[in-house]
Amino acid sequence: MDNLKALIREVPDFPKPGINFYDITTLLKHPDGLRGTVDALAAQYESEKVDTVIGVEARGFIFAPALAYHLNAGFVPVRKPRKLPAECVSVSYDLEYGQDTLEIHRDAVGEGHRVIIADDLLATGGTARAVVDLVEELGGVVVGLVFVVELEFLPGRKKLEGYDVRSLIKYQS
Amino acid sequence: MDNLKALIREVPDFPKPGINFYDITTLLKHPDGLRGTVDALAAQYESEKVDTVIGVEARGFIFAPALAYHLNAGFVPVRKPRKLPAECVSVSYDLEYGQDTLEIHRDAVGEGHRVIIADDLLATGGTARAVVDLVEELGGVVVGLVFVVELEFLPGRKKLEGYDVRSLIKYQS
Repeated sequence: MDNLKALIREVPDFPKPGINFYDITTLLKHPDGLRGTVDALAAQYESEKVDTVIGVEARGFIFAPALAYHLNAGFVPVRKPRKLPAECVSVSYDLEYGQDTLEIHRDAVGEGHRVIIADDLLATGGTARAVVDLVEELGGVVVGLVFVVELEFLPGRKKLEGYDVRSLIKYQS
Repeated sequence: MDNLKALIREVPDFPKPGINFYDITTLLKHPDGLRGTVDALAAQYESEKVDTVIGVEARGFIFAPALAYHLNAGFVPVRKPRKLPAECVSVSYDLEYGQDTLEIHRDAVGEGHRVIIADDLLATGGTARAVVDLVEELGGVVVGLVFVVELEFLPGRKKLEGYDVRSLIKYQS
């Protein structure tokens, strides 16, 4: 994945001083970068039976539908409150400062549906863990979680212990 | 496109009384619906040389990257303010009440780059028009705009006069 990693731009001090932001837009605007990323995500789970790929607003929407297409699965969005029009279930989870809430349509995942959760970034794992909880509340089975970038110096993987967690590009700092 | 239209759910009175919301999540969660939609979007421009497909946060992110993949192009996001980490150009445009602002990375589109703008919905056309302005400010050429759903009773197409505008599923009311 070194060829993909080379296309990621590091932006110091964003969104605040001391944070080194790994900017995937430079990867995505490159046709081979986009293609290589989607193909590599799909290769992770091509031998699995997958009904649904879930992506979280907003950057998760970039990868999850393309991955769903390649796995011949459906795509289901998890969104911020009051964005989804039909009946939802919601989950709240702690951020560094404060709380966040995410919603999914109640009829989006059925009992026993096999689900992949796809996102651009695994950092603290809070968002991913919240999505796991939503899927399981609806009776779905989390086959795995796949990320484009994993920040290995943060405890994301620990928060997802017991689940199959994969990532394409890893950073140690 | 009648088979795709049949998968769209109508939600009355969302997000406010009197509005009939066309909910594409029921289309997307269906593997054949997602596949059929992406294939139909790609078929619109498969004979064109396209460098970049642009999608607007958040629902435009669902289709634009998958379309870019199929056209062997790159994907560029247009986002709400303060989300993109590097140097941006921005555009403000009028909403029914108030204003909205969108941003694009300054280095995302180069002089003469051939661009498709893809979104889920063409309604008043305000967002699409703003994205056209961003692309042209950066020297890009708007090859066309493609939408999954077009509300033909609203003046979106008129606001994009002179551009190639296509949509898969049309509603007259």
